[in-house]
Amino acid sequence: MDEIAGSGHFFEDFRVGEILAHATPRTVTTGDVALYQALYGPRFALQSSDEFARSLGLERAPVDDLIVFHIVFGKTVPDISLNAVANLGYADGCFKGQVYPGDTLSAESEVIGLRETSSRKAGVVWVRTAGHNQHGETVLSYVRWVMVRKRDEAAAAPDPTVPDLPERASDLVVPPGLDCTNWDFARSGASRRWGDYAAGERIDHVDGMTVEESEHMMATRLWQNTAKVHFDQRAAAEGRFGRRLVYGGHVISIARALSFNGLANACLVLAINGGSHANPVFAGDTIYAWSEVRERIELGGRADAGGLRLRTVATRNRPCAAFPLRDGEGKYDPAVVLDLDYTVLLPR
Amino acid sequence: MDEIAGSGHFFEDFRVGEILAHATPRTVTTGDVALYQALYGPRFALQSSDEFARSLGLERAPVDDLIVFHIVFGKTVPDISLNAVANLGYADGCFKGQVYPGDTLSAESEVIGLRETSSRKAGVVWVRTAGHNQHGETVLSYVRWVMVRKRDEAAAAPDPTVPDLPERASDLVVPPGLDCTNWDFARSGASRRWGDYAAGERIDHVDGMTVEESEHMMATRLWQNTAKVHFDQRAAAEGRFGRRLVYGGHVISIARALSFNGLANACLVLAINGGSHANPVFAGDTIYAWSEVRERIELGGRADAGGLRLRTVATRNRPCAAFPLRDGEGKYDPAVVLDLDYTVLLPR
Amino acid sequence: MDEIAGSGHFFEDFRVGEILAHATPRTVTTGDVALYQALYGPRFALQSSDEFARSLGLERAPVDDLIVFHIVFGKTVPDISLNAVANLGYADGCFKGQVYPGDTLSAESEVIGLRETSSRKAGVVWVRTAGHNQHGETVLSYVRWVMVRKRDEAAAAPDPTVPDLPERASDLVVPPGLDCTNWDFARSGASRRWGDYAAGERIDHVDGMTVEESEHMMATRLWQNTAKVHFDQRAAAEGRFGRRLVYGGHVISIARALSFNGLANACLVLAINGGSHANPVFAGDTIYAWSEVRERIELGGRADAGGLRLRTVATRNRPCAAFPLRDGEGKYDPAVVLDLDYTVLLPR
Repeated sequence: MDEIAGSGHFFEDFRVGEILAHATPRTVTTGDVALYQALYGPRFALQSSDEFARSLGLERAPVDDLIVFHIVFGKTVPDISLNAVANLGYADGCFKGQVYPGDTLSAESEVIGLRETSSRKAGVVWVRTAGHNQHGETVLSYVRWVMVRKRDEAAAAPDPTVPDLPERASDLVVPPGLDCTNWDFARSGASRRWGDYAAGERIDHVDGMTVEESEHMMATRLWQNTAKVHFDQRAAAEGRFGRRLVYGGHVISIARALSFNGLANACLVLAINGGSHANPVFAGDTIYAWSEVRERIELGGRADAGGLRLRTVATRNRPCAAFPLRDGEGKYDPAVVLDLDYTVLLPR
Repeated sequence: MDEIAGSGHFFEDFRVGEILAHATPRTVTTGDVALYQALYGPRFALQSSDEFARSLGLERAPVDDLIVFHIVFGKTVPDISLNAVANLGYADGCFKGQVYPGDTLSAESEVIGLRETSSRKAGVVWVRTAGHNQHGETVLSYVRWVMVRKRDEAAAAPDPTVPDLPERASDLVVPPGLDCTNWDFARSGASRRWGDYAAGERIDHVDGMTVEESEHMMATRLWQNTAKVHFDQRAAAEGRFGRRLVYGGHVISIARALSFNGLANACLVLAINGGSHANPVFAGDTIYAWSEVRERIELGGRADAGGLRLRTVATRNRPCAAFPLRDGEGKYDPAVVLDLDYTVLLPR
Repeated sequence: MDEIAGSGHFFEDFRVGEILAHATPRTVTTGDVALYQALYGPRFALQSSDEFARSLGLERAPVDDLIVFHIVFGKTVPDISLNAVANLGYADGCFKGQVYPGDTLSAESEVIGLRETSSRKAGVVWVRTAGHNQHGETVLSYVRWVMVRKRDEAAAAPDPTVPDLPERASDLVVPPGLDCTNWDFARSGASRRWGDYAAGERIDHVDGMTVEESEHMMATRLWQNTAKVHFDQRAAAEGRFGRRLVYGGHVISIARALSFNGLANACLVLAINGGSHANPVFAGDTIYAWSEVRERIELGGRADAGGLRLRTVATRNRPCAAFPLRDGEGKYDPAVVLDLDYTVLLPR
């Protein structure tokens, strides 16, 4: 495709099978890690302490998995979703290798599905995005689909192609060298291990975090995400909401940080199985979260660690002691802003 | 004690002599240093420049002493003060070794005093907290006391134990290797040295700094401090003040940065002798500060540097040319928010 | 001159030929780079990726040229412009060497011109400021002139001295070792190279960025810039605008980041030929920008890269599709806040 200079692609620009090499490779640093700490306040020991990481066999504290997700996601925005009407979903997100400060990330996306909407004003675009490090190793792969406007409603639509997507991420990769046998439960902040959780258990993460304009904008710029809806109050004032929208990934990171209360040993995100941003979030909203344990997963006979498939739900301005989710008709409660299905690693 | 998952300890959970190993070891990085710079704007040359630090015999610029204080303090919050009604005081705070980027800090606290209040609804808890680096060396030790709610007012109270605390920190440690003989007064920003200050002198630090919500929250999250009063506007709206409270340490750091005007060569904090947060601070407040020189301290016959014991007073929305402190009845002026007694190092 | 402790110099304190060694040397780190990313959102590949920089012959990603400018500028404020009424202009700004994380910057200024105003209440001070690294190499040199208040209106004025300034920066230095021959146009985000631009072309940078109080204050503190007008809302409320002023350099960095849309391969700033802050900016304003190509410059027969002299105009609350600049009488349109003349490097 042609270069874009800030105007982005429209639905009719995409072709199934096309590969987009996204712009601006990005070296991750301890500066990014400190900003992530300041923006979200995570307390997971593995990402916080080089010493803790070394005690488990890693070379140093890896970068938070969600930093990797946000950076890779951000690179796709100018090519994929600058003219998106809605971010529809994620699937089959697999974290395939740890990223350390000093590593450089780049990203490519393959268009794997296209389907025009019945109104013919827009279409759904499915892409599989891969993030690579400087050695060409894939560190993250995920599918995302968005509804993208057409430039010209009369433009011909491609034959519809809808990809088959797994209900759960296809691959769970534990970092080579990681051994949780000597996990320090005093320093990690809680004694609950993998075997202490049971499918169906629900956990209120208790705390709330109020979102500020400068914080979500700083985060979103840090990831080089250029989606216009987050930054321009003058344009937003004329739009549907009258306000800047908070990047959905900002809410994911807040919810993950809040989940330390109850899931302190959920040290790595192995996979994102699916997720939806159920309602928009604006500055001034206070985010709360709760989680349900969906499944305990054995990891190839490992005795030191296991996987836990979680549903984490975030709300705005509604504490989560009562685990809000859907109304009587099965629709999301208006307070629900995030419904994320993902898999984490815990020591056994 | 049991793990807490966000609900914290209550007065009746504490036992004198008990030692709490706090969660989440934390590697300090130049990212933290840059954020500290952005949040407070300090201009002390020793922490700002690797070259300046090397010219005095250190390996590189040490991390600001208050970064160490905030990180160690933050770790104690989930175990000590999540259910605190009030942060009552500090004593005998000694910085015992410099911290450099790459060092990992962890913290423990020993309960050294307990006394139920007469109302039996709460009690005062005294702890001595120590921060360690990855070599097990103590880098900071201080006593703090807080009033903590009881879970159950009927719970039995322990026999009261009130620790003896020194009026002034017991130990003044100058970093090994530091030699201020060749101090560069042109680059440090002022010519005043240790001998130029006299006990009783008062210094207006002139400038004012307005506090924003996102700044105090970013700072407090950076230190992994989880006190609920700082982050949740929805809950705060129903509380005593109707607003989020600013972390007291945020005000300490603002006052210390402002104190460069008049104390530019006060290069290290050696001790915190005592301090109180006289009134709450909220976003929108503008912080000013002034200092009084309490004492000039010889440091074991050193010819290159000496200690200066200071009282630094910070105010909200009141410039400090008139040195506001107490009203006619000896109560703090309502504009006073911080009254800090500490000892700094200056070149002679 | 005497030390100042927060009160700054007045017009009658300056002497032509005097050299001021500014305070607080500053080591630049990847923490600063991450904050710059979070505050402005730049996407230029050379500063974003160590790998991209290495592919062009540099040792790693250099620090953004504007970080260098802001740090050097910030150091001059306590000595030069604390009592400035207006920042009148820049000239002959030359970036003479790349700065990398770990380098330490210091700055000196020479007073090169003085002229009292006709009112005798103030005077214009011209300084040539140089920024140096830890090896004593000049990395930036520029001239700036400001109108500075007199302490005492009756003070004698010096004979007027007005320096001769070049209309365009005198020196264009390409970093030694940089070779743009193998520039990766896919990863840099656009295919337009030096030869694709023509003098007179105008480019709308499309996006808008709303400024927040905490962001401009964090930026300005990061550069250790102490100008009082940016930080103290209480004092500002009593002043001319009733609000804190945004540091002019904050707007320069926003405009440069926005200019990626259309100038993605403008990888380095070689020179600042001149500039003026046409109108003040306040928090809440949304900044837009457009550029005009003034000149294509051959760089000493280099085949890999060329210079492009640009005028970049930033506006507040006015999108730039119509390229706003001046009204019918030749005055700046009230929406225009920055008119910057500078020279960038592009691959050929």
